[in-house]
Amino acid sequence: MAKTLTKREENYSQWYNELVVKADLAENSAVRGCMVIKPYGYSIWEKMQAALDKMFKDTGHSNAYFPLFIPKSFFSKEASHVDGFAKECAVVTHYRLKTDEKTGEIVVDPDAKLEEELIVRPTSETIIWNTYKNWIQSYRDLPILVNQWANVVRWEMRTRLFLRTAEFLWQEGHTAHATKTEAIEETERMIGVYADFAENWMGVPVIKGYKSENERFAGALDTYAIEALMQDGKALQAGTSHFLGQNFAKAFDVKFTDKEGKLDHVWATSWGVSTRLMGALVMAHSDDKGLVLPPKLAPIQVVIVPIYKGEDQLKQIDEKVNVIKKALEDKGISVKYDNRDTFKPGWKFAEYELKGVPVRIAIGSRDIENNTLEIARRDTFEKVTLSQEGIEKYIEDLLNEIQKNIYQKALNFRKENTFKANTYDEFKDIIKNKGGFVLAHWDGTSETELKIKHETKATIRVIPFDAEEEEGSCIYSGKPSKKRVLFAKAY
Amino acid sequence: MAKTLTKREENYSQWYNELVVKADLAENSAVRGCMVIKPYGYSIWEKMQAALDKMFKDTGHSNAYFPLFIPKSFFSKEASHVDGFAKECAVVTHYRLKTDEKTGEIVVDPDAKLEEELIVRPTSETIIWNTYKNWIQSYRDLPILVNQWANVVRWEMRTRLFLRTAEFLWQEGHTAHATKTEAIEETERMIGVYADFAENWMGVPVIKGYKSENERFAGALDTYAIEALMQDGKALQAGTSHFLGQNFAKAFDVKFTDKEGKLDHVWATSWGVSTRLMGALVMAHSDDKGLVLPPKLAPIQVVIVPIYKGEDQLKQIDEKVNVIKKALEDKGISVKYDNRDTFKPGWKFAEYELKGVPVRIAIGSRDIENNTLEIARRDTFEKVTLSQEGIEKYIEDLLNEIQKNIYQKALNFRKENTFKANTYDEFKDIIKNKGGFVLAHWDGTSETELKIKHETKATIRVIPFDAEEEEGSCIYSGKPSKKRVLFAKAY
Repeated sequence: MAKTLTKREENYSQWYNELVVKADLAENSAVRGCMVIKPYGYSIWEKMQAALDKMFKDTGHSNAYFPLFIPKSFFSKEASHVDGFAKECAVVTHYRLKTDEKTGEIVVDPDAKLEEELIVRPTSETIIWNTYKNWIQSYRDLPILVNQWANVVRWEMRTRLFLRTAEFLWQEGHTAHATKTEAIEETERMIGVYADFAENWMGVPVIKGYKSENERFAGALDTYAIEALMQDGKALQAGTSHFLGQNFAKAFDVKFTDKEGKLDHVWATSWGVSTRLMGALVMAHSDDKGLVLPPKLAPIQVVIVPIYKGEDQLKQIDEKVNVIKKALEDKGISVKYDNRDTFKPGWKFAEYELKGVPVRIAIGSRDIENNTLEIARRDTFEKVTLSQEGIEKYIEDLLNEIQKNIYQKALNFRKENTFKANTYDEFKDIIKNKGGFVLAHWDGTSETELKIKHETKATIRVIPFDAEEEEGSCIYSGKPSKKRVLFAKAY
Repeated sequence: MAKTLTKREENYSQWYNELVVKADLAENSAVRGCMVIKPYGYSIWEKMQAALDKMFKDTGHSNAYFPLFIPKSFFSKEASHVDGFAKECAVVTHYRLKTDEKTGEIVVDPDAKLEEELIVRPTSETIIWNTYKNWIQSYRDLPILVNQWANVVRWEMRTRLFLRTAEFLWQEGHTAHATKTEAIEETERMIGVYADFAENWMGVPVIKGYKSENERFAGALDTYAIEALMQDGKALQAGTSHFLGQNFAKAFDVKFTDKEGKLDHVWATSWGVSTRLMGALVMAHSDDKGLVLPPKLAPIQVVIVPIYKGEDQLKQIDEKVNVIKKALEDKGISVKYDNRDTFKPGWKFAEYELKGVPVRIAIGSRDIENNTLEIARRDTFEKVTLSQEGIEKYIEDLLNEIQKNIYQKALNFRKENTFKANTYDEFKDIIKNKGGFVLAHWDGTSETELKIKHETKATIRVIPFDAEEEEGSCIYSGKPSKKRVLFAKAY
């Protein structure tokens, strides 16, 4: 079959690239580094969006929309921010094309040069804080709890579908607060929302923690992240929440009068997740047969395939299936009945395995006689033949069971692939030969972190929130350390 | 009060501009021609999106996402398309900024010039048909029924919030079909969906029809549109659906094998509505006190304002309101209880009138004694005092009644402002002195249409689908005509 995948063991990277394309999630476009998100892939993203959007609203946020373009001068206002993003910006310099009079070709009109170049937003702190300046005068105007769903562009040189693309889709929350404490609470709240989403919707266990100074967002005082472990032993940063202090308020002169009438700069956070989560979802659970999707994010939760000879049998099955389908849909379960006669059952089985549909029901003419059907789980490949009676309750429970099982499997994998290293030799051995998360002592300096990165390609993913206090010494420098941090090679 | 609006009679245009800003719908940004859609405005747009998205899915469409950028060469492939859009394009020419060594300023890095310029999409036919080329080989791959929610950029010189902005949000459907008939049916289906949405959700009556050749989409064989009449007697095009024939399939060489094994070019449609609908919504219904929103699109359907002296009274009212609020929410009605003590009831009344909340409930301490409350309608300003018993059913019915009334009022307005002109003098008089829709005979030539436009600023909005067959002669040229077409000055 044309759709056979490279095995993960043979070449994990190639397996991923093939799976994303063959399962109709996304493909490369004619524009360097930009992807096309195909309808099936987009329908998963829509489910992610809907769940996240509800979580944002339940925590008091509203959506808004800010311009795609950012005047170049805005970037220069926050020094570390421009350092972080200037090297990967798409720059708009002209606003018109014209037909060249000599060649007849379409060319950029030199007379339509912009006075100030516009940057296609790589992130929106600058344009948003320039806007907030007009929205905030008093403590009564605070907090501002706004989120934006948008496309952003970062001109990455080496791109991979979902994981690293020049244009990607994301949400970016931008909040403004009267106090430092409130802003830090918001930063924590949102990393908590992301962890909740990753674990309870995506079925991907994550470790929450602080980023080291090296890995912080350009312009943040503190960055919190959630880190997930992929099946090849590499880490993937799945979401970040930044405490921005008063940096952007100072850069854009955003002040407010507090209850006592005193003027102060506003405190800020920003937080985001992107279509990168699609990459995490694929890599965390899928297998050599294709996608494995958690039921809560599966566009099709149950597929029904008829096994028949001739139109009479099909007609009998159709009638029965319509009843079953209705009963399942009444429980809020999304069902596809694939009775196309242009494809054989075996082809369909492989196709829906590739697409990661959690539950497959097969029903043949013998099942009609016996009032039975065959149920197959995508996550374990287990099959069982059951009576049609009360099947909707069984399926409902099974979907919950699969959701839990996928998470548990990923959690077990992470446990088996999280190691403690007490010496640098041990550390290097694990990183080189096993991969996975490595908990090790670190002296807290950027210098040491960068040397370890240079020598092993492993970086500090996070300093876990729940790291135990423990006397130890840095694996690299031998200097004293009070807790272990989480190292890994990362996407 | 600072929030008083200019009256419509005094200056309709200024009234609109003020209302959009003061009601917190949108504002101009620091980027020329680009707007910020504020949370309250965006929440209306979200309701529009949700309703439209469901209608698209109910008619078999899926969402997908295509790149923001279009290579310049793609534009040149469909001749009339590039003519239509080349003059208003944002062009990306570089992919990096750098710090100038001499001045220390952030400048565009001349070494990072793109080999081929990229256009920020003004519409996506070209990039999408270049993608479809790889998706379509056989009739089995058809139809493709895809929609995209996206931002687009058209470098308009004169911009107005929602009505005409350099960047705007929209959806663009792009479908591919095996036959001409099927593509035309799709084009018709989608203009029908738009009309349904405009009338039944926005409460805006529209006239469906064909665009004249002059007003067609660049690259279309036929454009269908819905046209609405605003309170100042000008028309607003609220949605378009294009039959593209095989133009884009030919430009991008997209062929398929039909059931008989014959190769043919694919047939196409595209259709879109944008944040311009927000402008239509505001202008169709609102009054000198502020927005009037149809309940189906109102972010807050009912606001409850307590009238009290002292904390004890407020506490009593709070308790009662919580019960009423819960009963309303159980019916799916969105309710805001504004018991802030920083604002007086009169201020709140004006504020929610400005924001267009369809129903206001006021409840005071005497109401607590009498088990009553006061209900005020935004659309008619009618007030009534009723028993609290069964109030949720009353409000539910009232919201339906307001939805209908708003539509009926707009429909009556349109009827009163739709005229027949039989001579050019009559025509000019109506256009100049009354405004509104004018039904008149036209000889079918672009020449005549352009002359009328030049002399009166009125254009043919549509040739109505339901225009009656009628012998007549063109108001301008006197040549024979078989039906009247719809003229107006337009936004």
